[in-house]
Amino acid sequence: MEEKFKVTPWEVSGKIDYNKLIKEFGVSRIDEILLKRIEKHTGKLHFMLRRKIFFAHRDLKWILDEYEKGNKFFLYTGRAPSGPIHLGHLLPWIFTKWLQDKFGVELWFQFPDEEKVLIKNNITFKDTEKYLHENMLDVIALGFDPKRTHFIIDTKHANLMYKEACEVAKKITFSMVKSSFGLNEQANIGSIFYTSMQAVPAFLPSIIKGKKTPCLIPHAIDQDPHFRLTRDIMPKIGQYKPASIQCSFLPPLSKAEGKMSSSEAQTSILTTDSPKEVERKIRKYAFSGGKDTIEEHKKKGGNPDVDVSFQYLRMFFEPDDEKLKQIEKDYKSGKLLTSELKEILIKKINTFLTEHQKKREKAKKEIDKFIYKN
Amino acid sequence: MEEKFKVTPWEVSGKIDYNKLIKEFGVSRIDEILLKRIEKHTGKLHFMLRRKIFFAHRDLKWILDEYEKGNKFFLYTGRAPSGPIHLGHLLPWIFTKWLQDKFGVELWFQFPDEEKVLIKNNITFKDTEKYLHENMLDVIALGFDPKRTHFIIDTKHANLMYKEACEVAKKITFSMVKSSFGLNEQANIGSIFYTSMQAVPAFLPSIIKGKKTPCLIPHAIDQDPHFRLTRDIMPKIGQYKPASIQCSFLPPLSKAEGKMSSSEAQTSILTTDSPKEVERKIRKYAFSGGKDTIEEHKKKGGNPDVDVSFQYLRMFFEPDDEKLKQIEKDYKSGKLLTSELKEILIKKINTFLTEHQKKREKAKKEIDKFIYKN
Repeated sequence: MEEKFKVTPWEVSGKIDYNKLIKEFGVSRIDEILLKRIEKHTGKLHFMLRRKIFFAHRDLKWILDEYEKGNKFFLYTGRAPSGPIHLGHLLPWIFTKWLQDKFGVELWFQFPDEEKVLIKNNITFKDTEKYLHENMLDVIALGFDPKRTHFIIDTKHANLMYKEACEVAKKITFSMVKSSFGLNEQANIGSIFYTSMQAVPAFLPSIIKGKKTPCLIPHAIDQDPHFRLTRDIMPKIGQYKPASIQCSFLPPLSKAEGKMSSSEAQTSILTTDSPKEVERKIRKYAFSGGKDTIEEHKKKGGNPDVDVSFQYLRMFFEPDDEKLKQIEKDYKSGKLLTSELKEILIKKINTFLTEHQKKREKAKKEIDKFIYKN
Repeated sequence: MEEKFKVTPWEVSGKIDYNKLIKEFGVSRIDEILLKRIEKHTGKLHFMLRRKIFFAHRDLKWILDEYEKGNKFFLYTGRAPSGPIHLGHLLPWIFTKWLQDKFGVELWFQFPDEEKVLIKNNITFKDTEKYLHENMLDVIALGFDPKRTHFIIDTKHANLMYKEACEVAKKITFSMVKSSFGLNEQANIGSIFYTSMQAVPAFLPSIIKGKKTPCLIPHAIDQDPHFRLTRDIMPKIGQYKPASIQCSFLPPLSKAEGKMSSSEAQTSILTTDSPKEVERKIRKYAFSGGKDTIEEHKKKGGNPDVDVSFQYLRMFFEPDDEKLKQIEKDYKSGKLLTSELKEILIKKINTFLTEHQKKREKAKKEIDKFIYKN
């Protein structure tokens, strides 16, 4: 890549040029024809589709072809537990729930609790075990259908997964992993093997049902290298290539580019943050597209494109297009001040999080319903 | 290595120079002092120790130190199911059973049913599943104590093993695997990861018991590269280095060097061979150290060192030193003809196999007692 940005499953940095990324990764843009076709099945499109937060895909046409023939797909997404959940994590999951509801399909949710242990020096299984529990609560709190949602945890479902991962691994050489993920000879052999575990949920339901079933993976685009490799391998083991639908990253508080990260607590909003904490973080850290003084702002207006608060509304918290348009207009004109824009966002986030935290509390009793029974 | 022989976990070829191998691998010879110390605990030494079939070790002194302090070790050995069991496989297991009986210790017997799938192109899980069952029968038939013997099968006990394997894998780089096993960048990522699964039984009992327990691995010396690597890693994850006691290979029928292999059915004797089959194979294929004509043989005598039949008696079928000595003497003098020596061996093998096959049949009902319950 020429520009100074980097997108791998383990590192996102710099100002991401999504157009370049589409070319680089070889994914397809979700076009208007495809959106119309989705709309036919779902009714009104989710705002993340309308606004092209989910902007790229692989084989989504095929998924719809099969669906229209009566061959339902299943959804697969996941979370490597290694820290608390922030808003950026929730974004694709909220969309995933919408897909589950609208298409009436199963979701296989993978918790690869070994991934970060293998990738990061300072993370142990003790850490991932703690966060596995915490992270499951956040997923459940989003309201997935427990009858159609199956959690699989790599170390706990290894009896189901390891053998299948070996089938995948047999078809992947070190040099393929090297070129896909930039791993070198000093990489540990667990991190080298790991991608084959991440491939498994893309076909495990087919194995369990004894019937090849299309798989659609909603995910942030940084995970594409895993699934690109998975797609290369699947036909070699007699399985469908998984399709994917890919979103951009919710930016950190500090600037409207890059990816929110829970390792920088000051620039991320966690699902467990209190209303006061949210207020403080937004007021203090949310990068503003406004002008330096109120007078100047009123005269010249702000720039919503670089304003993190506006971007959070656009990407997550204001589903109503008309309302969003009005906010954008008022901010650009200078009528809406940065402090007022932040106020709108703070209220939205706190309304969402108050509800989420209640559901999160209730989720503690529901975990068993979600974990797949071997 | 300078000489044209090769010993790796996946390939044994050429005339093996065991003295060279000891140096090359950095293992220790089992000396008289050590034999005396073992004898103190076991009474009369097993003929495989007396005759130095088991000839090398790592940390065996430490195992005895701990044992004498009341800190019992456990045994760990295994079998990668990929074909039928031949006499060469049984050799170290028979000795392992002796160790179990004499020291009253547990045995953890690993069946890495993924190993050969990952290493060999033409082997699938369908093959290993079939042979897993068959191979377990042979192990059980040897009379291991079901109360103290635990079978663990990699894909079926992955819930117990995969997480521990990741702990190991985190400490092993590709370049370490490359130098230990000669794998290159075209190796598949499952074969690269595999050694960490083979390491697990060396400390799994310690994890299960919640108490660090010494481990002794009886095995043929070709497996040393796995355990050498395991030994390097164990202290890094807070575990004891496993000790080992290593044997040489039962040769193929075709010559008194190398290693019996079930991929060459004509040069190996399978545990399921009929008495007629054994007779045919020994008569037809067992390489003879005798002379070309009976007259010449009677005059000059035979060479037991290169005579496969004699070697089988020495290594496996004639535990009585006096009787063996007499056979050797008579063969060297020419008094014992090749056909007569073969007759002795055929009888011995068939007596053994008739009994083994009966026990193997009974074992079909006992498998469940041996498989470790998660």
